[in-house]
Amino acid sequence: MQDQRLMIPGPTPVPQSVLQAMARPMMNHRSKPFAEILEDCTDGARWMFQTRNDVFILTTSGTGGLEAAAVNVLSPGDRVLALVAGVFGKRWADICQAYGADVERVEWPLGQAYDVERVKEALAKGPYLVLLMTHNETSTTVLNPIAEIAALIRRELPDALILVDSVSGLGTADLPVDALDLDIVVAGSQKAFMLPPGLAYLAVSPRAWEAIGKAKAPRFYFDLVRARDFKAKGQTPWTPAISVFYAMQEALRHLRAEGLTAIFARHERLAMGLRAGVRALGLELLVKDDAIASRAVTGVWPPAGVAANDFRKVMQDRFGIVLANGQGPVQDKIFRIGHLGHVGELDITSCLSALEIALVGLGAKIELGTSVAAAQTEFMRAAAPEPVAAR
Amino acid sequence: MQDQRLMIPGPTPVPQSVLQAMARPMMNHRSKPFAEILEDCTDGARWMFQTRNDVFILTTSGTGGLEAAAVNVLSPGDRVLALVAGVFGKRWADICQAYGADVERVEWPLGQAYDVERVKEALAKGPYLVLLMTHNETSTTVLNPIAEIAALIRRELPDALILVDSVSGLGTADLPVDALDLDIVVAGSQKAFMLPPGLAYLAVSPRAWEAIGKAKAPRFYFDLVRARDFKAKGQTPWTPAISVFYAMQEALRHLRAEGLTAIFARHERLAMGLRAGVRALGLELLVKDDAIASRAVTGVWPPAGVAANDFRKVMQDRFGIVLANGQGPVQDKIFRIGHLGHVGELDITSCLSALEIALVGLGAKIELGTSVAAAQTEFMRAAAPEPVAAR
Repeated sequence: MQDQRLMIPGPTPVPQSVLQAMARPMMNHRSKPFAEILEDCTDGARWMFQTRNDVFILTTSGTGGLEAAAVNVLSPGDRVLALVAGVFGKRWADICQAYGADVERVEWPLGQAYDVERVKEALAKGPYLVLLMTHNETSTTVLNPIAEIAALIRRELPDALILVDSVSGLGTADLPVDALDLDIVVAGSQKAFMLPPGLAYLAVSPRAWEAIGKAKAPRFYFDLVRARDFKAKGQTPWTPAISVFYAMQEALRHLRAEGLTAIFARHERLAMGLRAGVRALGLELLVKDDAIASRAVTGVWPPAGVAANDFRKVMQDRFGIVLANGQGPVQDKIFRIGHLGHVGELDITSCLSALEIALVGLGAKIELGTSVAAAQTEFMRAAAPEPVAAR
Repeated sequence: MQDQRLMIPGPTPVPQSVLQAMARPMMNHRSKPFAEILEDCTDGARWMFQTRNDVFILTTSGTGGLEAAAVNVLSPGDRVLALVAGVFGKRWADICQAYGADVERVEWPLGQAYDVERVKEALAKGPYLVLLMTHNETSTTVLNPIAEIAALIRRELPDALILVDSVSGLGTADLPVDALDLDIVVAGSQKAFMLPPGLAYLAVSPRAWEAIGKAKAPRFYFDLVRARDFKAKGQTPWTPAISVFYAMQEALRHLRAEGLTAIFARHERLAMGLRAGVRALGLELLVKDDAIASRAVTGVWPPAGVAANDFRKVMQDRFGIVLANGQGPVQDKIFRIGHLGHVGELDITSCLSALEIALVGLGAKIELGTSVAAAQTEFMRAAAPEPVAAR
């Protein structure tokens, strides 16, 4: 019998010590000890966001975080430009539309990333009050070039609010919020934070605060002004998910010990090792270009004659490895392998060795060991010091 | 040294086995095993609500649950009658107002419960689409007579929607949702459910579903139609707080073993024992009438010459007992003792024995042991079989 191994893009595996931290008894959430936990967790989130902006921790899912960002800066009729590269880009646009915003969408074909040309074209039809971007588009396994697009937007529309959904991206790839001058960035606990679901994080810039003062969309639970007023007292406006805060303190201990640069490098190494393995088997990746490949999740087309869902079933039944289905237009057609959060090199080689056995069992003609060797090679290359000449 | 004893009206103490249940590894929330947990927890919540209506479990706080109820049935301009007996009644009215409803408020003085006369008077100025009531008003420690008022509303306005905030009430006092024909009732995990915060529960009647079909208030995260569609697939629309669901399965095992009638009787016995103790010391209760006294939390005026907050500080520093401050107009003037959830008779006698020591230490003239004896007497009376003649 195999333990279950979660390889979906969230919830991600939670370290044992983080799970154990949740067994601590409840406490008064309006007390000095909780204020200290809140401060500690807020500092940690600020470190992950690479920001000196205000950061808020809301008791909700990532989608709730996206809604919080939208309703705090929008008024009905406000013009929003949504850059949509998949399901999650579309979801944020839908949220803004539900609250009466005038939403223009630029959509990219499956597996493609934002490009400067099309954004430039769309910006010319502006101005827009709000720009929506998705850092890591989980559904299409695409990493969007946020730095490049944000710089373009800042040049063309200096006062626009740049909102970034980094729910599944933060911690998997560098996103320096202050250096990129991003206005609201949203993250979630059950991704690279290595926590159970239940908390969403929002980094809010001074420019966003100005907009919040004018925004008329109705809000109460997600009201950031209330969140700010209570934070000044070391509290949250509403009762927070205390156990996930306990877990967060412990997870931050692990994350800080590893360091941001190492965390990004690890996610990059795992993604590239996995991609090398998949390629070595002659399988097709949903995203062909490494530069725009998600560092959190990888989409793969099964070989001809193998149904994606049959393959996922074998992976789960025989090896306990839980993979994700495709989303949107590729539902039931591809499978997605999550590799973010509490994941290491041996999770990738394990997954690839299982994948080989499963595919051969389903009739695919591949050579056993091939993908594992390719991933190992990639890991060793990534870990090796650069040759002196290249320095 | 003393362990901390939480005696606030939420979060409440969580049994050790329930805390441990949260240490279980994460799972895919879009899978058959999670569908089974969701079904089990939904059934358990339905049992607590005494309803066959749809019940939804949202990842949010109690306030989020109140907002979910409001935004799903309201359109801007809809007439709402809010029965306000304290901070939480006011909060729900504020939420409806934030979403553009035309809210009429009937307010009761501090420590008083809803009464038929004033509600009748207010209803005459109707019609109203929505009526808001608070079952247990935590801020003023009042238990409102929901059954009586709901019956009155049904007679006067047969089609009105009756919404009840039972966040801190459910499980502490009988609230048979179907028998009382209530349309949406809201509860929260960190109260009588004996769970950490993070989940809110909504019981939704067929009459409420009709209104939901017409309501135009903007909503996305809290949209109950999405919740219903996903529930049909054994899922929640957004990633749920999985660990609190694990905890909920275990807490329900305890709750079902005790039985609803016994749970209500226990909360009644604890409230009445505590009240007998407080009275025996000559201290004044915030709510004088036992019939409308909260079964979840008790408000007490400190004796002359003792500051409420000094008293709370001694209780915490010397005995580890965490009491709640007053809320609203009685903030810093009274103290509130929570006794809901995972609480028993000896928690009350412990609390009273500490209270006596603390008060004498602060200069109050009371006789040690008096309140403990009064509570013991009340417990023994409540536990004794009724005399044969009375049956």
